[in-house]
Amino acid sequence: MIKRQQIKDLLKSTAFDTDVTVMGWVRTFRNNQFIALNDGSCMSNIQVVIDFNNLPDELLKRITTGAAISATGKLIESLGKGQTVEIKATNVEILGDSDPEKFPLQPKKHSLEFLREIAHLRFRTNTFNAVFKVRHALAFAIHQFYNERGFVYMHTPIITASDAEGAGEMFKVTTLDFDNTPRTEDGKVDFSQDFFARATNLTVSGQLEGELAAMAFGKIYTFGPTFRAENSNTTRHLAEFWMIEPEFAFADLEDNMQLAEDMMKYVIKYALDNCKDELEFLNSRLAEEDKQKPQNERSEFSLLEKLDFCLANDFERLTYTEAIRILKSSKPNQKKQFKYLIDEWGADLQSEHERYLVEKHFKKPVILTDYPADIKSFYMRQNEPDAEGRQTVAAMDILFPGIGEMIGGSQREERLDRLTQRMEALNIPQDELWWYLDTRRFGTAPHAGFGLGFERLVLFVTGMTNIRDVIAFPRFPKNAEF
Amino acid sequence: MIKRQQIKDLLKSTAFDTDVTVMGWVRTFRNNQFIALNDGSCMSNIQVVIDFNNLPDELLKRITTGAAISATGKLIESLGKGQTVEIKATNVEILGDSDPEKFPLQPKKHSLEFLREIAHLRFRTNTFNAVFKVRHALAFAIHQFYNERGFVYMHTPIITASDAEGAGEMFKVTTLDFDNTPRTEDGKVDFSQDFFARATNLTVSGQLEGELAAMAFGKIYTFGPTFRAENSNTTRHLAEFWMIEPEFAFADLEDNMQLAEDMMKYVIKYALDNCKDELEFLNSRLAEEDKQKPQNERSEFSLLEKLDFCLANDFERLTYTEAIRILKSSKPNQKKQFKYLIDEWGADLQSEHERYLVEKHFKKPVILTDYPADIKSFYMRQNEPDAEGRQTVAAMDILFPGIGEMIGGSQREERLDRLTQRMEALNIPQDELWWYLDTRRFGTAPHAGFGLGFERLVLFVTGMTNIRDVIAFPRFPKNAEF
Repeated sequence: MIKRQQIKDLLKSTAFDTDVTVMGWVRTFRNNQFIALNDGSCMSNIQVVIDFNNLPDELLKRITTGAAISATGKLIESLGKGQTVEIKATNVEILGDSDPEKFPLQPKKHSLEFLREIAHLRFRTNTFNAVFKVRHALAFAIHQFYNERGFVYMHTPIITASDAEGAGEMFKVTTLDFDNTPRTEDGKVDFSQDFFARATNLTVSGQLEGELAAMAFGKIYTFGPTFRAENSNTTRHLAEFWMIEPEFAFADLEDNMQLAEDMMKYVIKYALDNCKDELEFLNSRLAEEDKQKPQNERSEFSLLEKLDFCLANDFERLTYTEAIRILKSSKPNQKKQFKYLIDEWGADLQSEHERYLVEKHFKKPVILTDYPADIKSFYMRQNEPDAEGRQTVAAMDILFPGIGEMIGGSQREERLDRLTQRMEALNIPQDELWWYLDTRRFGTAPHAGFGLGFERLVLFVTGMTNIRDVIAFPRFPKNAEF
Repeated sequence: MIKRQQIKDLLKSTAFDTDVTVMGWVRTFRNNQFIALNDGSCMSNIQVVIDFNNLPDELLKRITTGAAISATGKLIESLGKGQTVEIKATNVEILGDSDPEKFPLQPKKHSLEFLREIAHLRFRTNTFNAVFKVRHALAFAIHQFYNERGFVYMHTPIITASDAEGAGEMFKVTTLDFDNTPRTEDGKVDFSQDFFARATNLTVSGQLEGELAAMAFGKIYTFGPTFRAENSNTTRHLAEFWMIEPEFAFADLEDNMQLAEDMMKYVIKYALDNCKDELEFLNSRLAEEDKQKPQNERSEFSLLEKLDFCLANDFERLTYTEAIRILKSSKPNQKKQFKYLIDEWGADLQSEHERYLVEKHFKKPVILTDYPADIKSFYMRQNEPDAEGRQTVAAMDILFPGIGEMIGGSQREERLDRLTQRMEALNIPQDELWWYLDTRRFGTAPHAGFGLGFERLVLFVTGMTNIRDVIAFPRFPKNAEF
């Protein structure tokens, strides 16, 4: 067994004059004397003070940025500023060298673009240490939130034969060969010879399967990877991303909104409570970034203020119809500053409209409900037509400042006749979804659910601006490195 | 908002004579009077007593097995056996009918094979309610275990361009068309026109990427889906399954064994503490099944005894070399009862040998270490050759009674020269894994990790015998239904 203490624990320790061993990676080495050592257990480094007179020159030369070392010595009270303890090392051992001519991470500011190219090493920077610690905390908080509320964690399938959900373009999964592809008599690809004896894809959502489970356990959630084969090279889209999809029976749209708001507040509070150092670092980082911007583009709130604000205030709830009214009479619409002008009820909201509502008009998270049926999915519950005969569905989108759509959900259409009618209208094959329809045939009940894009949540809480910086190894068009 | 109480909470309540509303699915309806209602919140049903004189016949007829109903009435102390409370209903509403002629789940024992065909409904049986509640608890326990110990949860990529790990056959992921496949000048498939501009697959393991993160955070774990395109139709293999892969720096094989044993005990204890009813049910279920078997095939231990035994005893630790010695002189080897006779050092252990060690010889979980290098992966740390010059690696396999291999892991080869030497010998392209080798170039350090097949853990703890019964919608050759 390898004996070592974690830097995180030592920095809180007051057991002065005890012998300790730390192992980690050198961040800096100053004056042949002061090593700033980081072992990943926390953002802070511990200072290891060495007596260069007692160490061979050969060894001193190898204490370079990025090298892994083991240091043994006494834990002492630090006289230096910004730290309470340090280690007076009696022994230093090089575990792994790091050639300063070749190691790409030098103790200076690197651009996020550059770090993306070396995603396998960027975890060793303060920014990415903080981002992924927050990501971890948010993931754990989500599990804890649902566990406390009795939701059963379901692993819905990643490989699926159903392409009926229509949430987006799909990746094919196959073991067939592009050369000598088996063909049926009429020349089509013979998928009966593929691994699953049919054409299969990567899932775009676990919702439909989640509904099956919710109609037995009452309350379930998924937390797994989902995929979109869309050629979008934006700062908000990934080809592979993680989603959380709760689904619960005996629930309506209002229950759904409440669950979503409770969840968001719970996980943000958990991050604030458990990632104090990380969020303070990210707060300063964002403030620094902001200073580089022209006055009128700077944020009104700091990152921490923004998070606190979310906890302290109710999300604004309004219908699509009300939102259209606000947008129509808004200044950017009147002055034709929107790229897509809001003219009529029925228009799909664009990012510019969502941002206006959230960032300018309400200045807080907004839940939009009851969208026109025509711009939403087949499984959403049909409302009674409004006074003007317009057909809406019990959908909800939750919009966040700086992010746009964070959550999309709905009460589900539990009435078999209404559901199949809609599927027919949209040409969705009912025989492929026989199992989905069975839930409406046998003991159907009101139920609801939503999907939260996990990386968008991490973006919001960390204040990062590119979604490729909040997942370890991002997948996007033309990129599957690492 | 829909107001209802959970059955789980009511069964523990003593607030007699208060008005309550429950919603759930009818399990049985006896004597036009007693409804056994289940809402998925727990295994137990609540008894809803109705006064058939005050309810219309039309309604009574619709109270059938599988129907979803809402019942309102007073919570009262129950006089019946096996329950403490019941509901004296004043109002019953049908939420969703279930045609008794068509609903496949009748209140009788169905075979697991039959239930596998209706995996979308099997959650509504006691057995699968119990199995998936235990699965949930185990998943949560794993997150809690690693979170408490400061391991950072990493989402390693599902779509990967690396096929170098050699853990098994892979599924292709592509957006190319089988018709009009783009070709290069020399007639090969032109993957530069595929979505990721290269050939990609579904991951077989997150280990290599996990190592990158461990060399920054010190301690990480993954919990995600992994895939094998192998044509194995067994009770222990799936094409899509979930794996937990911790990886930690400054750790050797002994640390690795300790972490694995601590984890297994922690999660089993968590299940025992949090799934008492479910495990008792599964315990009885297994005892019933056992009774059907001939005497000599029956288990020595009940499920609960087996789980308790795991907690109370240290796992047996021995080297491969010691295991070979035991197997060579074992009765089944001497009597030529093994299908693969153990003759020489270097033989790969088969399931029959593992089972002999675990179930006959030691009768407890066994950790086998230090396997011959030739039968293990390139990234495992090379031991010094033994007295007879034989080359082993610091690998470990953890074997469990009734399951066989539960965990496979190793200390990793952190020495660049040793690692590349091995890759050369095995024809593993080093340029593709440049990022992996970088961890050995810049601040390399001893580190270790392992992979736990989640479904095998669930099999062990639930006492189920077919891996297709412990994942919601199993994926295996010729099957991707639901």
